[in-house]
Amino acid sequence: MTDLLSHMDLERGMLSGGVFAERRLSDLRDAFADQRSIDRMLSGGEDPLVYTVSTVEHGSREGDQHIGLGVLYPGRVGREFFLTRGHRHKRPEASEVYVGLRGTGKMILQNTSGTSVINLLPQSTLFVPGHTDHRTVNTGGEPLVYLGIYPAWAGHDYASLVERGFTVVIVEDQGVPRVLDRSEFLKSLGANH
Amino acid sequence: MTDLLSHMDLERGMLSGGVFAERRLSDLRDAFADQRSIDRMLSGGEDPLVYTVSTVEHGSREGDQHIGLGVLYPGRVGREFFLTRGHRHKRPEASEVYVGLRGTGKMILQNTSGTSVINLLPQSTLFVPGHTDHRTVNTGGEPLVYLGIYPAWAGHDYASLVERGFTVVIVEDQGVPRVLDRSEFLKSLGANH
Repeated sequence: MTDLLSHMDLERGMLSGGVFAERRLSDLRDAFADQRSIDRMLSGGEDPLVYTVSTVEHGSREGDQHIGLGVLYPGRVGREFFLTRGHRHKRPEASEVYVGLRGTGKMILQNTSGTSVINLLPQSTLFVPGHTDHRTVNTGGEPLVYLGIYPAWAGHDYASLVERGFTVVIVEDQGVPRVLDRSEFLKSLGANH
Repeated sequence: MTDLLSHMDLERGMLSGGVFAERRLSDLRDAFADQRSIDRMLSGGEDPLVYTVSTVEHGSREGDQHIGLGVLYPGRVGREFFLTRGHRHKRPEASEVYVGLRGTGKMILQNTSGTSVINLLPQSTLFVPGHTDHRTVNTGGEPLVYLGIYPAWAGHDYASLVERGFTVVIVEDQGVPRVLDRSEFLKSLGANH
């Protein structure tokens, strides 16, 4: 029985024994609504680290669970706060329990019942039910750090979500985060450009 | 989509929206090896709170998960540190992910491979595989606070464990925790009484 214990390095986003992955802005081109702003950043040579995930996969049998430590950095593309790509599970009935550890953020949850935006904060848990798209957004000024715990068999489906998209965006508005309908936001961009 | 967010009150051991349960020493008579010391405490009118659990059950379908916030208070019965009753899951293949939040403790894990004692500390996760008895022990001087996250269908089996028992005890020895074979510990008690 080795490696059942994993230390969380909250500064570096490392879960000991985990597999570490980085996502830069160039990996997330489709995830932001404001394509003009992301193109401007990338063509100007800016490709910041947006988030990292360190994943420990404890077995793959029924009843096993996997653990991910996520760090979502503060920043914006235009007015949109930095976000994760978002996913639904490949076996969509799989839920996920998030545990907020540091920073200030929100999760966008979207399923056939509609769209919800829920705070992700330290000293709180957030339950993402099965059959629900979910995306994390850092609305604060420091890294947003959290655990995600899910059934080993859950899998990740990113592809179908690219087509569906999220119905809302979270943008900076006079210093505070504001949830906007994505299509309204796109219209406002068109008007301003 | 309501109540997906639960606040953790680490002082009171409350997970908002959860069901709260208390376990006093008199509920744990069988869990300690040193029956003479526990009898002495209880007959002397001491029945301290040993631990609390606040549980939020998010659904009961395949893929759902439940969350428990545990607080195990510091204290001893004779030389044995305060502990939880311990359990295996009713559907034994269910694993459990523990997340240490405060305090200093250990978990005893026991299955057909043998017995392990693993630290349960803040900023760490501890994976309890399926088919494994597990008990938490507070070896420090402050409350040991942790989350446990497990499949909704796991269930708890306490009864079979009462018969099996744990093979080791964790006792105070000149100011530090020491893991002893339970039968050796019982022999030493017999010699001292």
